[in-house]
Amino acid sequence: LVADLGEFGLIARLAHAVGAAASPALTPGLKRGIGDDAAVWAPTPGTWSVITTDALIEDVHFRLSTTDWYDLGWKSLAVNLSDVAAMGAQPRYAVVSVGLAGDLPLAAIDAFYQGMADLAARHDTLLVGGDTVRAPCLAITVTVVGETRPASPGEAPPLLERSAGRVGDALAVTGALGASAGGLRLLEAPEGSADRVRGGDEGSALLQAHRRPVPRVEEAAILVAHGLRCGMDLSDGLLSDAERLAEASDLGVVVEAARVPLPAALVAVFGDEALAMGIAGGEDYELLCAGPPAALATAAAALTARGGPALTVVGRLVPAPGDGSRVRVVDAAGASLDLRHGWTHFATTDNGLAPNGDRVG
Amino acid sequence: LVADLGEFGLIARLAHAVGAAASPALTPGLKRGIGDDAAVWAPTPGTWSVITTDALIEDVHFRLSTTDWYDLGWKSLAVNLSDVAAMGAQPRYAVVSVGLAGDLPLAAIDAFYQGMADLAARHDTLLVGGDTVRAPCLAITVTVVGETRPASPGEAPPLLERSAGRVGDALAVTGALGASAGGLRLLEAPEGSADRVRGGDEGSALLQAHRRPVPRVEEAAILVAHGLRCGMDLSDGLLSDAERLAEASDLGVVVEAARVPLPAALVAVFGDEALAMGIAGGEDYELLCAGPPAALATAAAALTARGGPALTVVGRLVPAPGDGSRVRVVDAAGASLDLRHGWTHFATTDNGLAPNGDRVG
Repeated sequence: LVADLGEFGLIARLAHAVGAAASPALTPGLKRGIGDDAAVWAPTPGTWSVITTDALIEDVHFRLSTTDWYDLGWKSLAVNLSDVAAMGAQPRYAVVSVGLAGDLPLAAIDAFYQGMADLAARHDTLLVGGDTVRAPCLAITVTVVGETRPASPGEAPPLLERSAGRVGDALAVTGALGASAGGLRLLEAPEGSADRVRGGDEGSALLQAHRRPVPRVEEAAILVAHGLRCGMDLSDGLLSDAERLAEASDLGVVVEAARVPLPAALVAVFGDEALAMGIAGGEDYELLCAGPPAALATAAAALTARGGPALTVVGRLVPAPGDGSRVRVVDAAGASLDLRHGWTHFATTDNGLAPNGDRVG
Repeated sequence: LVADLGEFGLIARLAHAVGAAASPALTPGLKRGIGDDAAVWAPTPGTWSVITTDALIEDVHFRLSTTDWYDLGWKSLAVNLSDVAAMGAQPRYAVVSVGLAGDLPLAAIDAFYQGMADLAARHDTLLVGGDTVRAPCLAITVTVVGETRPASPGEAPPLLERSAGRVGDALAVTGALGASAGGLRLLEAPEGSADRVRGGDEGSALLQAHRRPVPRVEEAAILVAHGLRCGMDLSDGLLSDAERLAEASDLGVVVEAARVPLPAALVAVFGDEALAMGIAGGEDYELLCAGPPAALATAAAALTARGGPALTVVGRLVPAPGDGSRVRVVDAAGASLDLRHGWTHFATTDNGLAPNGDRVG
């Protein structure tokens, strides 16, 4: 059954069906196939295009009882812009497919489109088409195409790739982690529960992070401009996504728990639980990148200089461990910690909502 | 309500939300926005890219009781390849998003991917990514990117556009029309009904046309190479799609019923009903094009020479009528006929399945 395989297994299955045909080695024009945040091809030698698609399903990825239509439009586009940014590319064009019930008020679909259009405008992206169909469940699919160009003619256009990590690289994240997971927990908490009560004012920042994530488009461009070439976005949570990066680069990752940046609001609301949410929680849509410590330091300074988010070293890349567990989380003393991994879309019991994925291009 | 607006109204609404930003006049790089079979942009001056997306929903566009998974994969891609061809472009890359239940057998998703991959290979298209998510209803969205290049450097890349029709152009279609509508009617007919009985052997060609349509990718390239610049694909049916072409070109269309090519199998099974199915039935994914009669004649000869389908003149473009009815169907004597228009996705009572649309890019 599909449920026994899990999402990453399904990706492998799709790659198998496509076969050798979609190997860049065999296909002129194709630069990167299935397996990163987006696929890459070269319409002409000097410009590479990237493409990514992500689906959001009602009661799987969001609930209409806790999300308004504007935010739903925003987030549907945001998760895709994040994937394009995570390849080191500038998003350019988006198309949206919406399956919905015919008895929906027009104001809802208007707000949905407006949420998409407003976010698109913030990142120089154009919504150029779509398909709106009747459906028994609300299903949204957005596809975004972006591009990357070289700084100097004749060079290959730069990319941020999961597979470009090297032993000795430092591992860093933009911003702070766990706000979206905190917001989701508040959204899913029953009326009158302890979570609801302690949510209070601080909770609104967490709810906002979950409902209206900000894709790191300009930040990714700064990372690339400073020579960084290994990265992805954080959609499934640091632990799960670091494992993807480690697999793609065929090495191991050590995450130092004490270094993981946590939002003040998350700590204020959830106290000691904040760390686990920062490490395992999904949908932050921050960037995870790896590179030489010096390059990360200059990129961090450039981000700060323009008023952007922090770029925080949270660990390092190490040789692949022999025991198959590629990611190790350690405390300040270097001792291993055990924390729950990110969700999987099919294989787990469904507690709350699943994160929107970014794994197949 | 969305149901009161209908699909074409929703497209207008999306275009409004996107606003002037998505006007090619205001946006460098964008060549065509919302309103044709696909949107068009220029990653570099010499190559234009096109993008289209289409969703297929269980029990709206297909039923699993009458469609197998391989055919479903094939058709999901075919309707999108058809849109790219309908812009005069060569499809290159596809991504697929599938929302499905976790208790689906793996063999089903394997067959689905294989159907897509096999059709993709036939048209030099690569499946480069996707997103597979859990969903309470089966929802498939495919997005295809294609490209068009000029025959000579310095020229603008050619397109087939709905808006390029001119008064005096002849209107032509590839192949024969109505087979898919005939196949759908056989699929939807109750066991033991008259339709089922008369379906017989001839019916299998109609079923095949409905389940596994062949996008006219190579044929569109031949039309473009022979100077034709006005066209679209037939997804909603000749009447409905001719109206779209007439609107986009701001003129009228006269269709001569006696000239509409009907498949022998359709006539054999449905007799006198075949004509209405050929004129109003959707999902043939043949090409509808308009141009000078001489250009159509040479293109027709070129199609025949390579063993391709017929290109049949079925009518002509005329000045826009004052009464708002842009499409007139006439009999051999020139008298107007009245035939049911194509489906609309939201506004109509649901008799059977809806056609997969191609209208928003």
